[in-house]
Amino acid sequence: MNLVCLDLEGVLVPEIWIAFSQATGIGELRRTTRDEPDYDKLMQFRLEILKKNNLKLPDIQKVISGMQPLSGALEFANSLREKTQLVILSDTFEQFAKPLMQKLLLPTLFCNSLKIAEDQSVTGYTLRHQNGKKEAVRAFKSMNLRVFAAGDSFNDLAMIREADGGCLFRAPEQIQKDCADLICVDTFEKLMEVIDKFLK
Amino acid sequence: MNLVCLDLEGVLVPEIWIAFSQATGIGELRRTTRDEPDYDKLMQFRLEILKKNNLKLPDIQKVISGMQPLSGALEFANSLREKTQLVILSDTFEQFAKPLMQKLLLPTLFCNSLKIAEDQSVTGYTLRHQNGKKEAVRAFKSMNLRVFAAGDSFNDLAMIREADGGCLFRAPEQIQKDCADLICVDTFEKLMEVIDKFLK
Repeated sequence: MNLVCLDLEGVLVPEIWIAFSQATGIGELRRTTRDEPDYDKLMQFRLEILKKNNLKLPDIQKVISGMQPLSGALEFANSLREKTQLVILSDTFEQFAKPLMQKLLLPTLFCNSLKIAEDQSVTGYTLRHQNGKKEAVRAFKSMNLRVFAAGDSFNDLAMIREADGGCLFRAPEQIQKDCADLICVDTFEKLMEVIDKFLK
Repeated sequence: MNLVCLDLEGVLVPEIWIAFSQATGIGELRRTTRDEPDYDKLMQFRLEILKKNNLKLPDIQKVISGMQPLSGALEFANSLREKTQLVILSDTFEQFAKPLMQKLLLPTLFCNSLKIAEDQSVTGYTLRHQNGKKEAVRAFKSMNLRVFAAGDSFNDLAMIREADGGCLFRAPEQIQKDCADLICVDTFEKLMEVIDKFLK
C-alpha cells in the first residue's frame, strides 16, 4: 500500500508567517529557516516579536482565516486522495493549520503545537519530534507502507531522502543546486506525473 | 498532538463480505473471523468460493458501490476530523474500500491489498503487516502522537490496548464480556463523548 507525504506551507498553502508579516507590516516576521537555520532561535525570536507587539493567537488566526490554499492545491490534493493515501507532514502548528485544512477538505495532518496562555498569548511551542518529518516517514515504512514524499524546503530533505521515492516542489534555487540528484517540479500537474510513476 | 484510529467495517460502514453474501445469496460468505479465527484460512475459503462462482473483483465492487456508510457515520467522522486527526486502520482491501471512502469524504485509510489477475479475478491478498493495526498504533506513538483507538472486533483489541486510550464500539457481547476492563459504547454520540474526554 502506498502513502504520499507532503509538506504544507509552500506546497499546498502559502507561508503562514510571511502572510502574517504582510498583514501586520512587521517585516522581522518574514525571517524564515533560510535566514536562521536554528529553529528554536527563530521561534524564540518570533515569540518575542509577538509579545512586544501584544499580538496573540486570535490575531494570527484572523489573518490565517483569510488565507486560501495555493492555486490548484485543493484540486491536486483531492485528486491525489482519490487515488492513494495522503498525510501532510508539517512544521506548522495545529492552532495555525485548522482553517487552511478545512479549505483543503481535512486531509490528515501531523504537525507541532503552540503553548497558549489563558489570555491567548503564545508562550511557547512543542515540537512533536526532533526531525519529525523524517521520523514519521520511517515509522510509516515500519508499517510496510511504500512512501513518496515531496516538499520545498531544507526541513523536507531528510523526509524525502528517507522515503521510497520523492521530489522537490518549487524549491529555491540553492536547494535545487545542493540536491541535484533530486527532481524538482514546479506545477501540480508535473508533481502528479512523478507521483503516478511512483504508484505504478 | 492527538490522533484517533478507528476500525472501518462495523464502525463507519457495514461489513463488506456480509453485504456481498446478501447480494449474491451465497450464505457461506457470511463466515467471519468469529467463525474462523485463522484469517488466512478464512480468506482462502472466500477466494475458493469466488472462483467456484466465477465472481471477480468488479462483481464485488458493484455491490460495494451500492453500500452506504452506517447511519450517522459521515457526520461523526467529519466532526471528529474538525477537532483532531483521524486515520482509519482496517483489515479490508484497498480495492473494496474506495467507493465507501469517497462517501466518507476521503479520510486517510491504511489497509490491505488484493492480488488481482488480468481478467479481474481475485487470486490472493497481501497483508500490509502481521498485526497491522497494533503495529500502526505503535508506530504512531513513536512519532509522539497521543493515540486513541476504537473498534468492534477481536482484531481491534491489540490496537486498542496498544493505544494511549480507547474503547469498544458496538462490540458483540462475548468481546464485551472478555474485555470487561474496556468501555463499550453503542452510539456515535457516546463515542464522541469518550474521545472528547481523551482529547482534553
